[in-house]
Amino acid sequence: MAAVLYVCTTCRAGAPVPEGAAAPGMQLFDALTGQGAPDGVTIRPVECLSACDHGCSVALSKAGGWSYVYGRMTLADAPEILRGAGLYANADNGIVPWRDRPVIFRKQSLARIPPMEP
Amino acid sequence: MAAVLYVCTTCRAGAPVPEGAAAPGMQLFDALTGQGAPDGVTIRPVECLSACDHGCSVALSKAGGWSYVYGRMTLADAPEILRGAGLYANADNGIVPWRDRPVIFRKQSLARIPPMEP
Repeated sequence: MAAVLYVCTTCRAGAPVPEGAAAPGMQLFDALTGQGAPDGVTIRPVECLSACDHGCSVALSKAGGWSYVYGRMTLADAPEILRGAGLYANADNGIVPWRDRPVIFRKQSLARIPPMEP
Repeated sequence: MAAVLYVCTTCRAGAPVPEGAAAPGMQLFDALTGQGAPDGVTIRPVECLSACDHGCSVALSKAGGWSYVYGRMTLADAPEILRGAGLYANADNGIVPWRDRPVIFRKQSLARIPPMEP
């Protein structure tokens, strides 16, 4: 089932952004799109996921699945974010077995939301 | 548009629950259902919103709308949670004007997720 990986591109990760520099959230978005989305995953920029105290943040959602929000992501996490997004896209209801989830997803969950009701 | 208010009923709000006592999340669910949902809002219990570091937590979602998760809710917040849920149910895309939102929703957002893509 097609999934969307949202990346908060306005995130400053709690620090001032030097003039002319890209915000950390935009840098993360660029790193993710540069490495390429796994099959079944579309990467979309979004302005603010309202998780500013725990930035940089990303969210995963898909029709019929639980949605997830993860925080405190860094550029170094890009490969694991993409791996986790691919597993999510292929999992029933979006629930990836715990042992398979990237450690950053296990430890840095901000919230999850049940599937939308039909 | 019909909205769902999810209440994490397993939330222990970071403290042990005395034997025989209801978890704080279940107490909040009971308070909310006892006071009655506003028009257009259904209150549903859910086991874990994965926001355990910021419990008790509630989430709002509806078809075509942004979803929101709020944390550190208390029993005293029940009336404002219900008021905010009613505004959410009636707002285009689920986006309630900032000045109208309950203060607990302004200050205790854990995350939001864009509307599901059609």
